Amino acid sequence: MSKGTMTILGAGLSGALLSTLLAQKNYSVQLYEKRSDPRKFGLEEGRSINLALSHRGWQALGQAGLKSKVQEQAIAMRGRMMHSETGDLSFQPYGTEDQAIYSVSRLGLNRLLINEAERAGAELCFQHRCEEIYLKRGAALIQNLGNEESFVTEPDLLIGADGAYSTLRTAMQKTPRYNYSQSYIEHGYKELSIPAKNGDFALEPHALHIWPRGGYMLIALPNADGSFTCTLFLAYEGKESFAKLNSPAEVIRFFEQRFPDALEVMPQLTEEFFANPTSDLVTIKCYPWSRYGRNVLIGDAAHAIVPFYGQGMNAGFEDCRIFMELLEEHGSNYADMITHFQELRKPDADAVAELALKNFIEMRDLVADREFLERKKIESELHHRFPDRWVPQYTMVTFSDTRYSDALRIGKQQDKIMRRVMKHYDYASELTDQDYERIVTLLDAED
Amino acid sequence: MSKGTMTILGAGLSGALLSTLLAQKNYSVQLYEKRSDPRKFGLEEGRSINLALSHRGWQALGQAGLKSKVQEQAIAMRGRMMHSETGDLSFQPYGTEDQAIYSVSRLGLNRLLINEAERAGAELCFQHRCEEIYLKRGAALIQNLGNEESFVTEPDLLIGADGAYSTLRTAMQKTPRYNYSQSYIEHGYKELSIPAKNGDFALEPHALHIWPRGGYMLIALPNADGSFTCTLFLAYEGKESFAKLNSPAEVIRFFEQRFPDALEVMPQLTEEFFANPTSDLVTIKCYPWSRYGRNVLIGDAAHAIVPFYGQGMNAGFEDCRIFMELLEEHGSNYADMITHFQELRKPDADAVAELALKNFIEMRDLVADREFLERKKIESELHHRFPDRWVPQYTMVTFSDTRYSDALRIGKQQDKIMRRVMKHYDYASELTDQDYERIVTLLDAED
Repeated sequence: MSKGTMTILGAGLSGALLSTLLAQKNYSVQLYEKRSDPRKFGLEEGRSINLALSHRGWQALGQAGLKSKVQEQAIAMRGRMMHSETGDLSFQPYGTEDQAIYSVSRLGLNRLLINEAERAGAELCFQHRCEEIYLKRGAALIQNLGNEESFVTEPDLLIGADGAYSTLRTAMQKTPRYNYSQSYIEHGYKELSIPAKNGDFALEPHALHIWPRGGYMLIALPNADGSFTCTLFLAYEGKESFAKLNSPAEVIRFFEQRFPDALEVMPQLTEEFFANPTSDLVTIKCYPWSRYGRNVLIGDAAHAIVPFYGQGMNAGFEDCRIFMELLEEHGSNYADMITHFQELRKPDADAVAELALKNFIEMRDLVADREFLERKKIESELHHRFPDRWVPQYTMVTFSDTRYSDALRIGKQQDKIMRRVMKHYDYASELTDQDYERIVTLLDAED
Repeated sequence: MSKGTMTILGAGLSGALLSTLLAQKNYSVQLYEKRSDPRKFGLEEGRSINLALSHRGWQALGQAGLKSKVQEQAIAMRGRMMHSETGDLSFQPYGTEDQAIYSVSRLGLNRLLINEAERAGAELCFQHRCEEIYLKRGAALIQNLGNEESFVTEPDLLIGADGAYSTLRTAMQKTPRYNYSQSYIEHGYKELSIPAKNGDFALEPHALHIWPRGGYMLIALPNADGSFTCTLFLAYEGKESFAKLNSPAEVIRFFEQRFPDALEVMPQLTEEFFANPTSDLVTIKCYPWSRYGRNVLIGDAAHAIVPFYGQGMNAGFEDCRIFMELLEEHGSNYADMITHFQELRKPDADAVAELALKNFIEMRDLVADREFLERKKIESELHHRFPDRWVPQYTMVTFSDTRYSDALRIGKQQDKIMRRVMKHYDYASELTDQDYERIVTLLDAED
């Protein structure tokens, strides 16, 4: 017996997971996706190939009973492996020994989630494009691109999981007093690769590799086949920028100077550099996430963020988990449920957007800074001594489901305190037991 | 001899003033406006009828030699006249005795500026609508609504002074990586009026009247004919909101309870309330203000703000002044001039947007707060004692051409200091000479 009918636009990661969760709870689910079935075809262009799955993502996958299946595809990354310009390596653990983030293939995970949605009873329609939205009815005009026939779907709830350029949100943007912003950073990104070497990983597999270079950076995440997917984050314009890399010789010279140890393991660098697109990095904010109570946005459609905290997918999956919890709470009163959802979730979406932008500075610049590293050591020691009273911001965001807005606020308090601490000490080793006591007390006093 | 050709879209306040200034400097100016000539017809709907002109506006008018002509139409407002719920009045001067802001009629000022643009030699084309923009060429397709003929204008520089819903900006929004945001507050506004009483002002004419009521407010500005134009700022939804005022009886009851002394002088209240539109309050930000160097946005098209600091027109006029100064500096190198203009002006546009939003809180809420009033007294005394070292934020914004971004930054420093001061004192009268010395030193130390 169906509890209610739900139409989901977009079979990306959030859309496929939410379809699975809803179908498992006996909702009647239709999932429309304009692209072809990714189980039969490859990846779309310009999206990152692998992603870092962390606590919030696992929580939602656990709710759908999919933890162990995803685990089989995932590679643990226990910390950052920093590469200096001279090729020196240094490793910074993300947390305690048993804490890791996980590299997963976007395509592999998407295929798995689509299979699960189907298995749970969702009706999947690929090559079906949403042509028009009827906001007040929560309805949509869908065209089957195969036979060009169109029909109207009018579910109890229309859910836009259709990404940063959401059709549902575009319809909302035409309504009065709609709040909307799109903000691009000056950097673009390009995906490159480090192939497996004699069938094995060319670099340490259980780390997220970073080549921080101040204004820009290269990163690499491991894939199950022994390769790494690299992403170069670089300004579009300026002294060192994509605009200055117009020939294979210029690319090689840039990598020779800045990323010499990476260049050694990137035999296809110049081919990939000119074959792969340069993609934009945008933060999209909007509000409300529903108009008239019969539709709602989730995931990137509601809050697209830059990738530097590895939280885009995790935030979308957390949306799904909270969505299901509120649905349980409100039953068929969808209008109230949606109001509750957006009011609860909007401050966290704004917070993770800010966290993601800030982390770019940290990754490309601060991680190579001595004072920053000593500060991290002090914070790690504080967490070790006072596990509940001092939790580093990275830990709150990545290894807990502390609300993003709380993690942002507490992180700012920690930052204020640590700036004062770092005026007095050069090295973590100088701090006494009393110092640690005093610092944690300062944070308690901020509350 | 023409120095260059300039096409301006929009004959509102900023467009008409910039046309005047450019024509006076021997640029060949075409001004296209889709509406009819406001010298022959009345005001468009939904715009405020009178505006507060302050230092920045006067500076730009002075540059065009128009100070004395505008002065004839302006009514000085030397401070805020606060109306309590029981009808008690209290007057807070804006600055020193010779400092005032000036109530001017939007329509009167617009007519005057259009006359001056024409006199200076600008070619004015009303009922000419911009149909399409060719960004790279800095060109526009213009349709004469009178005979429906269209033609392309391709000046040296295409200037969008076409307001919050700018056609030029809309074209820029379609280019890659364009930063844009529109953000509405929860309040709308409705214009009402207090007619002249036996041919005279029904309230003190040399003040801006405010009925602050916490979450909302009524204000009134004097007109030359003895009337006042009132604006009610009220939430769209909620306990006390436009949504709750659906009948003449409900409006009367609301005014009886909240604005009894205003109600006495508003005989046409209910007719006006239901005849006049409720308008939105939006902040629009965008960047860049030019694409490809042959076009540029100014005024509301680049930075629409809420009206609570009375700075919308003043900021637009300051754009015009700075535009002319940079044109003088860069000569016919328009691309460099525009780059300089937007880089200089963007931080100030963002700052005045923030100042305007903050001042709503101050006007509707704090002005009736005892601690706030004592703080204002202390700051006024600080300014009196140390005219260069402590300038209240309101004075910097309204009575100087201190950059808005500096006024915002310094104001935040003052705020931090004054919050500490107000923990120790209840009344301005408690402060000693030494206290004032100490406070001003704190601000010096912030720099």
